[in-house]
Amino acid sequence: MKILVVGGGAIGGLYGGLLAKAGAKVSFVCRSNYKVIKEHGFDVKTALGDFNFKPEQVLKNTDDYQGVADYVLVTTKVLPEVDFIELLKPVIKNNTTIILLQNGIHIENDIAAAFPGIEIISGLAFVCVSQFEPGIIDHQDYGRLVLGVFPRGLSPKLEAIAELYRSVGLELETTDNIVKCRWKKLVWNAPYNPLSVIGRSATTEDIMLNKAMVTVVKKVMEEVCLLADLDGCPLKETVIDNNLDATEKMTAYKTSMLLDFENGRALETEAILGNAVRFAAENKVEVPYLKFLYVSLKLIERKG
Amino acid sequence: MKILVVGGGAIGGLYGGLLAKAGAKVSFVCRSNYKVIKEHGFDVKTALGDFNFKPEQVLKNTDDYQGVADYVLVTTKVLPEVDFIELLKPVIKNNTTIILLQNGIHIENDIAAAFPGIEIISGLAFVCVSQFEPGIIDHQDYGRLVLGVFPRGLSPKLEAIAELYRSVGLELETTDNIVKCRWKKLVWNAPYNPLSVIGRSATTEDIMLNKAMVTVVKKVMEEVCLLADLDGCPLKETVIDNNLDATEKMTAYKTSMLLDFENGRALETEAILGNAVRFAAENKVEVPYLKFLYVSLKLIERKG
Repeated sequence: MKILVVGGGAIGGLYGGLLAKAGAKVSFVCRSNYKVIKEHGFDVKTALGDFNFKPEQVLKNTDDYQGVADYVLVTTKVLPEVDFIELLKPVIKNNTTIILLQNGIHIENDIAAAFPGIEIISGLAFVCVSQFEPGIIDHQDYGRLVLGVFPRGLSPKLEAIAELYRSVGLELETTDNIVKCRWKKLVWNAPYNPLSVIGRSATTEDIMLNKAMVTVVKKVMEEVCLLADLDGCPLKETVIDNNLDATEKMTAYKTSMLLDFENGRALETEAILGNAVRFAAENKVEVPYLKFLYVSLKLIERKG
Repeated sequence: MKILVVGGGAIGGLYGGLLAKAGAKVSFVCRSNYKVIKEHGFDVKTALGDFNFKPEQVLKNTDDYQGVADYVLVTTKVLPEVDFIELLKPVIKNNTTIILLQNGIHIENDIAAAFPGIEIISGLAFVCVSQFEPGIIDHQDYGRLVLGVFPRGLSPKLEAIAELYRSVGLELETTDNIVKCRWKKLVWNAPYNPLSVIGRSATTEDIMLNKAMVTVVKKVMEEVCLLADLDGCPLKETVIDNNLDATEKMTAYKTSMLLDFENGRALETEAILGNAVRFAAENKVEVPYLKFLYVSLKLIERKG
């Protein structure tokens, strides 16, 4: 099985690496760590068993890929400055399946429109993983993947990739409604990610200690539920209380957006909030709390 | 005429100083700059004519004041940790008038309730003034005062203090509806003050350059107008556009709240936003944008 991973970050290194460990022929398109990966490959430190692997091909551009991939696994962040369609065009052939392992909501729409007839698997990673040094993937905690065919359903190629991951001990769930899973994840991400940045390195504990803020967190979650409903993905009524309770009980936690911000990396403002706010506008629904989070992040990033 | 100024900050130094310049017997209660003021008095640098003045009495506490003041001019910030009633009790006699030269909305209510029968003059300062070094008051720009009897009306003691200020060349306006003037000032303060902090040292220009943010600024202003209306102070329909236009045309400006934040001083979150949000709750009106600004500042300050 031939797999091309687009994005040599922590997510790509881990989830691409596990496929290599499972026996697939895995190649990588890397940017900042190209040289290191080309020479040494990835060292993956994980409770699933540390391993090193050298990708079949290490590339600077998708254009340079030799052969036809069965899967193209996209693990880069969803940023407006990255043209995914141009990036993927050279490597999407008739039987190639695209796997989008990325944050946010409605991130599949443009790609699905650009590649009609191509199967898209959309996925969520619930994981703590970092690449503090180029080529060293430090898988700290969790790791569960949720994968489903976009927009709905299951498929043989979904089952095949799920089997590969399970063969190396990864917890993996397939779903016939990945869009709903994305909305469900957004219930947590939409408030806590931006608030951790707006609150100047506020941990989940800092946010939950602020009683007035908890009422606002709840309002944000209600807005997400309202949008999920409009998108044909009604969430259970308990989802908000469950998220609040779970966060209350967590040890103080820095969100991935906060870690991005503290490390000077671009934020996934558009994928996590912008798409939700635009979906609300298309449906003529007011989401003042989501809108405020969205524009506050844009202001912090000085993006008009 | 005997005046006790409570608060030896920039506002106190300037507006107390101008009364001294006008011939009043002005005393001060100071904290951090007590020693400097006791020894050297204030140097006031102002386009109205530089001057030095030594207060009649320089005190650490209101308890120590000798005599009966005709006016007690309160120029400290409105912070929940300051008990103004306890602070003022020792110096409020039958004929003492309290002047509150402070930011925010509904800041007079508690004091009016605590001192029944005592005249309260409430005032707004439109001024750029700083005390970079203890005792050196640097009056950079503007300076206009708006004063009115709280809750409504004019009075002889209001006219008397106005006359003193005018005698030294200060631009001063008296109003029979100071509460309305406070709401009007809040139309600008409510969005720009917190957004400059949330936006990490965002100037007015940074805020106005962000188009999505301008729509949010407008929403905040609409909420303030709604509350003003409920408070019996309907503002003109043009107030929002006028504020937006004026801000658009300003040179990039750092709000006073941002300067406080950058200098590690406490923010007037409760006076500017908390009181407005509480007034909305009492009136069962939803003000999501104001609420968001309010709780974001509380989170930034790590105040539950």
